[in-house]
Amino acid sequence: MRTGVWDWAAAACILTLCFGCLHVIALKSQLFTRLGGLAYSSETPINYETFYFEQKVDHFGFLEDGTFKQRYLVADKHWKQPGGPILFYTGNEGDITWFCNNTGFVWEIAEELGAMLVFAEHRYYGESLPFGQDSYSDSKHLNYLTSEQALADFAVLLQNLKSTLPGAQRSPVIAVGGSYGGMLSAWFRMKYPNIVAGALASSAPIWQFPGMVPCGDFYRIVTQDFAKSGHNCDANIRKSWRAINNVSSTASGLQWLSDEFSLCSPLKNKIDAVGFKNWLQETWVNLAMVDYPYEANFLQPLPRWPIQVVCKYLGFDAAVSDYQLLHGVSQAAKVYYNYTGSSSCLNTSQTATGSLGILGWTYQACTEMVMPMCTDGVQDMFEPEEWNFQAFSDECNAMFGVRPRADWAGIAYGGKDIAAHSNIIFSNGGLDPWSAGGVTHNISGSLVSILIPDGAHHLDLRYSNDHDPPSVREARALELEYFREWIGQAKEAPRTASAP
Amino acid sequence: MRTGVWDWAAAACILTLCFGCLHVIALKSQLFTRLGGLAYSSETPINYETFYFEQKVDHFGFLEDGTFKQRYLVADKHWKQPGGPILFYTGNEGDITWFCNNTGFVWEIAEELGAMLVFAEHRYYGESLPFGQDSYSDSKHLNYLTSEQALADFAVLLQNLKSTLPGAQRSPVIAVGGSYGGMLSAWFRMKYPNIVAGALASSAPIWQFPGMVPCGDFYRIVTQDFAKSGHNCDANIRKSWRAINNVSSTASGLQWLSDEFSLCSPLKNKIDAVGFKNWLQETWVNLAMVDYPYEANFLQPLPRWPIQVVCKYLGFDAAVSDYQLLHGVSQAAKVYYNYTGSSSCLNTSQTATGSLGILGWTYQACTEMVMPMCTDGVQDMFEPEEWNFQAFSDECNAMFGVRPRADWAGIAYGGKDIAAHSNIIFSNGGLDPWSAGGVTHNISGSLVSILIPDGAHHLDLRYSNDHDPPSVREARALELEYFREWIGQAKEAPRTASAP
Repeated sequence: MRTGVWDWAAAACILTLCFGCLHVIALKSQLFTRLGGLAYSSETPINYETFYFEQKVDHFGFLEDGTFKQRYLVADKHWKQPGGPILFYTGNEGDITWFCNNTGFVWEIAEELGAMLVFAEHRYYGESLPFGQDSYSDSKHLNYLTSEQALADFAVLLQNLKSTLPGAQRSPVIAVGGSYGGMLSAWFRMKYPNIVAGALASSAPIWQFPGMVPCGDFYRIVTQDFAKSGHNCDANIRKSWRAINNVSSTASGLQWLSDEFSLCSPLKNKIDAVGFKNWLQETWVNLAMVDYPYEANFLQPLPRWPIQVVCKYLGFDAAVSDYQLLHGVSQAAKVYYNYTGSSSCLNTSQTATGSLGILGWTYQACTEMVMPMCTDGVQDMFEPEEWNFQAFSDECNAMFGVRPRADWAGIAYGGKDIAAHSNIIFSNGGLDPWSAGGVTHNISGSLVSILIPDGAHHLDLRYSNDHDPPSVREARALELEYFREWIGQAKEAPRTASAP
Repeated sequence: MRTGVWDWAAAACILTLCFGCLHVIALKSQLFTRLGGLAYSSETPINYETFYFEQKVDHFGFLEDGTFKQRYLVADKHWKQPGGPILFYTGNEGDITWFCNNTGFVWEIAEELGAMLVFAEHRYYGESLPFGQDSYSDSKHLNYLTSEQALADFAVLLQNLKSTLPGAQRSPVIAVGGSYGGMLSAWFRMKYPNIVAGALASSAPIWQFPGMVPCGDFYRIVTQDFAKSGHNCDANIRKSWRAINNVSSTASGLQWLSDEFSLCSPLKNKIDAVGFKNWLQETWVNLAMVDYPYEANFLQPLPRWPIQVVCKYLGFDAAVSDYQLLHGVSQAAKVYYNYTGSSSCLNTSQTATGSLGILGWTYQACTEMVMPMCTDGVQDMFEPEEWNFQAFSDECNAMFGVRPRADWAGIAYGGKDIAAHSNIIFSNGGLDPWSAGGVTHNISGSLVSILIPDGAHHLDLRYSNDHDPPSVREARALELEYFREWIGQAKEAPRTASAP
């Protein structure tokens, strides 16, 4: 079964590569590969217990009455009961232990808030598989993989915890999440304000949906990161695509490229060359996401400010030969893929840490999470590619037998019209391409935006570090302040009497 | 097929009667039979166009990609475009034309608000059948009958209307509904504040769910209505159950009862006698719901203040014989069932106008809409009956192959913790038993309660009448004031820019 899943995943990659639906590839890797890496946890040891909650497979229908075991992690060492707050991580598309290890912020503030930490795994990821190994076997089994079901899981789990854990009944809950997990945190507060007092939605692109933001903004920000990290860096990457086209037009050129990039599987034809370019594009995107101010191992082990290091190889001033340019590109790529020097070859079919999540997110992107992206080669450093919803839909249909609903997320989660909600922090990093779809201005006094100009993808959720820029220190302090405010509000709220 | 459905409905009634799950019977009739009757519409002629919208069968999954035609009615005679408001009736468990005819309030205020009226039919009722005549054929086809799906229908329909009707793009929408339709209005605003600026939830028992209000309050209010409508009226009804038990213990007594009550189908045994008592109980409940201050034809053609008329037959002071007492009861029942004198016999298997809705609501009560009710014979005038969730669940399972989820509605819709929401009016009538589960105090400055002490079930939504008590006139004026306020707020809100 496991093999079957991976075959399918591989097929999905090939399909998306072939049909040029770059955004799926982009999503797949961008929202996924973040999951890798080890926590910067030397100061604050992580210690949690693992539990499993019997969760309904279908919250929105009564025919399918099956259940599955949803994994969640609990750390209550610092919890002040009764009534101490609960910081609840709304798990996203991957193994919950990764999120747990990579959300140092909540570990660092647990003691001063007297808070319990709960990390809830998202259905269909990690160990929380609704149909066990069959969960990904076909579209029938995948039918319950939606954000609405995931939010309902969180709500039911929390309701259960609060009614069964002694001392938790009046504990205010604050949802915390990053990336898609941040979207879930924001939506959780919007849809279940009875369950959560507030939400920190870090690097959450809740507006990266059709008609809400220009489709080119994402790649424009990637490009800006490179532009400001080294002389001519973006310009040379922009030139590299044509160079690859030129060089890959001959068999010897393909061989040269394969050798130069130390590819594990040599490029054999034009289709391989397209896949190679997508892989490079994804690499630059990933670098933009993890352009952290300190050496870190999130997607890959990387030096501090990795784009600056990458750009050292891409500073050509004048016209250079295609081969010279691509030599620079290969050196740059190896910063990302082989910083430690331990890789014997580079694998173009994988930029992500192994995870079932790849397929799961592709399904989510093919259903609810329709996130238009496009490039023009002018505002950005990539080959021009328009957003083509029909082609995307056809591809999804071929892959899963389902078609995306372009407007649904906007209707369900409010799109730009979210001012009626309250108590949500939207934090965004200026270096993070996902900030293109994020909420980057205050919407009201309690729907606030925190900008971290020097921050990449949800830097604020990571452990603090001596190299943290002041902007992220201030962001965390402000976030903590809001947490205290929401906790205070919740505690002051009149207690509603229940019937006997 | 139609016959099959009705057979099943009949079976459902028998089952619920047999197993004594009075609340289902109560719900079935109480939330349903209201639909009957003709509008008091002589002053304001009703004129609308009927449309059908292609709606997804399943909003929360992507496997079932089928669609069905959702019926909706539009009256735009007074609509001031561009930007005039939309009053949107969130259809409940029945034919939408009935709700349209029985919601005179919105017809009367359309002109002064320059509003368009839209009445949207609830899926699985009236003509809006997701699988046509198969919609009720089994639990598989019934699987998409949930309030969440209905709300999503409303949201998608409105989104579509606003984006396709010239001049509607910036039209503020106000949701209006009564009874279950009122619950939907409130929930619609809670879950989709991006779509609706505010909601009037009239006689909406959003707290008639497990653990929220005492299960006995509903029947206590019914009893109070009778107690204050005539001397000893409640006491004599309280005595009547034992009298029926006594009389029905013999064959001749059953015959006497059948003759005395002019029953179409004579009572034959103990089970029939239990059904007979349930039918009477339902009759008193229905009277409490429609105890209007003027002659009206809603559930049945009735005189003004019908309970006062009923109680004229139930004023016995001292001990009377069982037969004397039950003669009074039969006269009283005939006020409800034969005010016009046109019924040749009384049918104990039906108090409701014919509607597929009976079965649909029974399914909804058996899944999400778990509304505990109980009687003790002391605070109320009925035979004692505890709330027994397990028996109820077993019955639902036998009937539909599904089991109710007692806690789900509370989790999904917030239960008592709804203070984070805004712009909802909860109006309740003091005579209406459903006010027991309603919001009868202000929760915040914009979640307000309007009490109509002399009002029965959603009196405020009906056409105005010369006999209207001042309380309902004031209620309507205040509701209109809130509508204006919400419309003003919505028009002032900054216009959010869309991406190209």
